[in-house]
Amino acid sequence: MISGVLLDLAGVVYDGEDVIPGAIDAVARLRGAGLLIRFVSNTTRSNKPALLTRLLRIGLHTTSDELFTPAQAARQWLVEHDRSPYLLVHPDLEPDFHGLAGGSKKALVVGDAGEAFDYQTLNAAFRELLEGAEFLGLAPNRTFQDVDGKLSLDAGAFIAALEYASQRRATILGKPSPEFFLSALAGMNCPKAKAVVVGDDAESDVAGALRAGLSKAVLVRTGKYRGGDETRFKPAPTVTVDDISAAADWILAARNIQ
Amino acid sequence: MISGVLLDLAGVVYDGEDVIPGAIDAVARLRGAGLLIRFVSNTTRSNKPALLTRLLRIGLHTTSDELFTPAQAARQWLVEHDRSPYLLVHPDLEPDFHGLAGGSKKALVVGDAGEAFDYQTLNAAFRELLEGAEFLGLAPNRTFQDVDGKLSLDAGAFIAALEYASQRRATILGKPSPEFFLSALAGMNCPKAKAVVVGDDAESDVAGALRAGLSKAVLVRTGKYRGGDETRFKPAPTVTVDDISAAADWILAARNIQ
Repeated sequence: MISGVLLDLAGVVYDGEDVIPGAIDAVARLRGAGLLIRFVSNTTRSNKPALLTRLLRIGLHTTSDELFTPAQAARQWLVEHDRSPYLLVHPDLEPDFHGLAGGSKKALVVGDAGEAFDYQTLNAAFRELLEGAEFLGLAPNRTFQDVDGKLSLDAGAFIAALEYASQRRATILGKPSPEFFLSALAGMNCPKAKAVVVGDDAESDVAGALRAGLSKAVLVRTGKYRGGDETRFKPAPTVTVDDISAAADWILAARNIQ
Repeated sequence: MISGVLLDLAGVVYDGEDVIPGAIDAVARLRGAGLLIRFVSNTTRSNKPALLTRLLRIGLHTTSDELFTPAQAARQWLVEHDRSPYLLVHPDLEPDFHGLAGGSKKALVVGDAGEAFDYQTLNAAFRELLEGAEFLGLAPNRTFQDVDGKLSLDAGAFIAALEYASQRRATILGKPSPEFFLSALAGMNCPKAKAVVVGDDAESDVAGALRAGLSKAVLVRTGKYRGGDETRFKPAPTVTVDDISAAADWILAARNIQ
């Protein structure tokens, strides 16, 4: 029995500025069947209000409660550990960290800073690590599908650079951290045995969710999906389908069978 | 019997702009005893003529033949493999790759680009990897001691970023690659059983050279040496001495004994 669905956004619901055909209808059908939904995105270039506005623009009406982001998970971590953030993130993400400067010690927070990544900012962040700052990574994604349709470097590459130089490991707050999936499920009161994830990233979305204990994972052949991804990472997806519309079909059929 | 000596430069012969006391005399004594010498440096921010000028400025007269650099190893590799270089290196290093554009396919060459590292240049290099370029790293160093006395990010961090994103491994051309040490020895017609290295880096210089099959390795307590380094990496140095002057004493004594 499936009662909760975690939906990735980029590459599943939208591609760049365009909605993926059938996505709005697929979400409506899942909701109409009484399933609980959370949008779980590792995108760290936009703050939460901007992300909600973007979804509205493509015709997806949702609320802040339905959206769970790595920045939100990082905020929780910083408050719990009494740390001030030293941000190496996209300027547009900074509002998600407002009002957190009171911590007695620092934590470096690395997101997809995009064009803001340069030698000076990376080296300054590295020196914060040398001086004892905690090390948080919002998302370990290797790549994302850029506006020109090609893959570009994502936050994970820069986290890897800082890990290599400092010989320390970052605490990852977003997918595929088990805590991220479990926090999203906790917020919707859905046990992991009754949850399914839908994503275009066989490693971060699919293998990550299954490793966290989710019951099922659907890989879609949109977004960053490349042929053969379904066998490239373990655990493998429960099923691989063409797009979110086919994923909704599969989920709605599967929930009645099992 | 020792017939060839590989000498590291930074931290062994000079520190920043200053010659290490006794270094010029030590080199003269090794040469005077008929030993063959190669200077082997992982520095990739200066081209070879600039490095020779720098050595001349501290009073060390040497020739291009006596200096072996990762860029030179990369040139050899590119010619042997018929590849054109796609350079992600410091602008000052570019002259070392002039005249190599004829290869039928490309190879990405990553050095310590310093301030030239930014998102656009790294992403463009990443896309070359995706399109099938070979992947060469000049030196895997994590950090270097910067002009302000603090550690800064070295080329290894950016190689690690590209390795992580591309899920490929770079071929390392500089130390501690065995091929680097063996190429330096080949250029002086010295068998590895008759060669000794002198370095301040117990991992890259000492363990690297011994792993490549060199007979002996002398660790000096100058430059980046920190107490306990002699037991921190395997294989351990043959001997640890105060500086290059003591290293020359040891080599000149050892060559007559064995």
